[in-house]
Amino acid sequence: MLAEYSQERGFTTRPFLSPPMQLVHRDLSAWMNGVVGMRAHIDPAGNIHGFYPGSSTDTPRLFIGSHLDTVPHAGAFDGILGVVLGVALLEMLNGERFPFSIELVGFSDEEGVRFGVPFIGSRAFAGTFDEDLLATLDRDGMSIADAIKAYGLDPEALAGAVVDGPAVGYIEFHIEQGPVLEALDLPLGVVDAIVGQTRVEVTFNGSAGHAGTTPMPARRDALAGAAEWIGAVEREARCTPGLVATVGCIKAVPGASNVIPGACATTLDVRHARDEVRAAAAARLAERAHEIAARRGLEFVWAPRLEQPAVSMDLSLVGALERAVRLAGAPVYRLSSGAGHDAMIVAARMPAAMLFLRSPGGISHHPDEAVLEHDVAVALETGRHVLHELVRDWS
Amino acid sequence: MLAEYSQERGFTTRPFLSPPMQLVHRDLSAWMNGVVGMRAHIDPAGNIHGFYPGSSTDTPRLFIGSHLDTVPHAGAFDGILGVVLGVALLEMLNGERFPFSIELVGFSDEEGVRFGVPFIGSRAFAGTFDEDLLATLDRDGMSIADAIKAYGLDPEALAGAVVDGPAVGYIEFHIEQGPVLEALDLPLGVVDAIVGQTRVEVTFNGSAGHAGTTPMPARRDALAGAAEWIGAVEREARCTPGLVATVGCIKAVPGASNVIPGACATTLDVRHARDEVRAAAAARLAERAHEIAARRGLEFVWAPRLEQPAVSMDLSLVGALERAVRLAGAPVYRLSSGAGHDAMIVAARMPAAMLFLRSPGGISHHPDEAVLEHDVAVALETGRHVLHELVRDWS
Repeated sequence: MLAEYSQERGFTTRPFLSPPMQLVHRDLSAWMNGVVGMRAHIDPAGNIHGFYPGSSTDTPRLFIGSHLDTVPHAGAFDGILGVVLGVALLEMLNGERFPFSIELVGFSDEEGVRFGVPFIGSRAFAGTFDEDLLATLDRDGMSIADAIKAYGLDPEALAGAVVDGPAVGYIEFHIEQGPVLEALDLPLGVVDAIVGQTRVEVTFNGSAGHAGTTPMPARRDALAGAAEWIGAVEREARCTPGLVATVGCIKAVPGASNVIPGACATTLDVRHARDEVRAAAAARLAERAHEIAARRGLEFVWAPRLEQPAVSMDLSLVGALERAVRLAGAPVYRLSSGAGHDAMIVAARMPAAMLFLRSPGGISHHPDEAVLEHDVAVALETGRHVLHELVRDWS
Repeated sequence: MLAEYSQERGFTTRPFLSPPMQLVHRDLSAWMNGVVGMRAHIDPAGNIHGFYPGSSTDTPRLFIGSHLDTVPHAGAFDGILGVVLGVALLEMLNGERFPFSIELVGFSDEEGVRFGVPFIGSRAFAGTFDEDLLATLDRDGMSIADAIKAYGLDPEALAGAVVDGPAVGYIEFHIEQGPVLEALDLPLGVVDAIVGQTRVEVTFNGSAGHAGTTPMPARRDALAGAAEWIGAVEREARCTPGLVATVGCIKAVPGASNVIPGACATTLDVRHARDEVRAAAAARLAERAHEIAARRGLEFVWAPRLEQPAVSMDLSLVGALERAVRLAGAPVYRLSSGAGHDAMIVAARMPAAMLFLRSPGGISHHPDEAVLEHDVAVALETGRHVLHELVRDWS
């Protein structure tokens, strides 16, 4: 099983261009090359491609893909399921040809674990990878450029990874990584947008003091201020349909049980499918932090770390996927993706859409991550139908 | 200056029986032995004593003391000021004799930094040191017993450190370590009680999840629950006169900006001069944690770590100190100590009381810790008067 190709025994941990990725590439290449007419290759960004020719030469290409890297201690499906499902779909076709060629892509990096830079694979593919990032170092002091070299590829040839020629579009199958489809008892969901994200580091500064000798009115407790604001973050998200807001990290300084925290650093993550809703929510939370800090005699620092607009999926591809889901016998349901995906990057280059498979328990980035066999079968069936739907569009 | 005797260059860091303590003992011994009639010695617990005889042999002893160890990166006054002030007081007496002898004590350990066991010095003095603790190891794997040996003392003789014979009582001069006296513009305060403490580790457990894909109603966010409870802790203390309650540590797990915290561990510290008020407050906070956790679908763990009753100071000594403060020309003000002190340990053995000196800015356990020269002069004058007040009581 491909999930066993890992940097860590007993877990699935497979960052960008790590040794276990070689094994995944080896097995996938062999499988792709075994499909009638299909040929695999690895591009200079470490993305694997499997080209399945169309009914004539010079047909435009339909891309089907996802990523092959994982977070540490990952599950077996996030990313790689979309690639495996693509190969299985082409295998199922028994050599049937279409007025477009089909190219599978397994991106080398989406999670960004190794270099702290996500989407290296799909950015190289979409032509939006900033080559200055090649100097970024991993924990062992190796640069992206050197990692590409060490993998047997040529970083100087990175421009060769950029997709060219006419494209039908990009379709990505991916697990939902959330509880929505399961709660609705649906096997599949068609993604119409990938939400935008605002990330901010929010720090409150007060004064440390002795927990026994400082009366309550004399305190400037940074953690108490942060706690009040965390309550405001939660209320803001609960009151705004479709908004999610999370404080995931918190650090109180000095962090001793008998010392009043003099500083408290937190992170804020706000997401919504509509950029103006997200921006308004973030602005209100900054305002609340300001108000809480002022009332408590604290200072606060609002340090924006990411401002990523929402990305709409291509309406025509979304429609084709919806028809295909219906033809596969499943209910049609549209949702936005709260997580970033390669489709978001590729959408800058060509029409893109995604199909989500239900995540049992909503679990992801965890060894318990799962998919139901039944849902995979319906997704494959949807894939078969969408090819024919696209034939209609492209005939 | 004694504050320069430190384990760390540029900071005052002087734990139990560390090498710089030898230098403090050397200088203090020399100073004590220079006072007419006074003789210094080190007991097997590493406490320094300076005996100043009374007007006849076999007089009961009045003890004046505090501790000589410090926290890391300490100020120059916490502890040692009380010992230095004692020597200066006896020096000021110019050989005057009293119907009691006077013994200065500089305790070897109050802060508990080296072994995680506080009050080693005063416990050995009061006869409440549990000798099983001799096996406790410091960071370098050295036991308390070996540390005593390495200092040139005999851990087998530890019982010899226990005070015996009749005692007038114990008086401790110490900086307030809080902002109360400064806020009232008072140089001194007479301590009537050392507050009791409850310490608890409080952990909330929910489920980790993706910050983008988990809708708000589906979340079991442990940090959001903890934040709500931290607000309740603060309100409880603000609503209860004399109560202080502090959450000093917080840790959210896994602690990533894009992951909903699945667990959040905090510490609670609650103090009050009356044990029943403290116990009732702690019980209400446990109840609030229970209610918050139940409503949010979290589990919580309430793990008590310390339950230390309040210790009353001796009313007769408190009265003598108050009269002395008045005679020294300062306003009389009584307060309870929110911090633990050696006087709390010694009170198990003999009447004990404390005199606090104003802490500018309320700062303590910090290099900026200070005292005003004027306040030290008034404290010395108070010390001189209290000796005469005690003469009246003991004549």
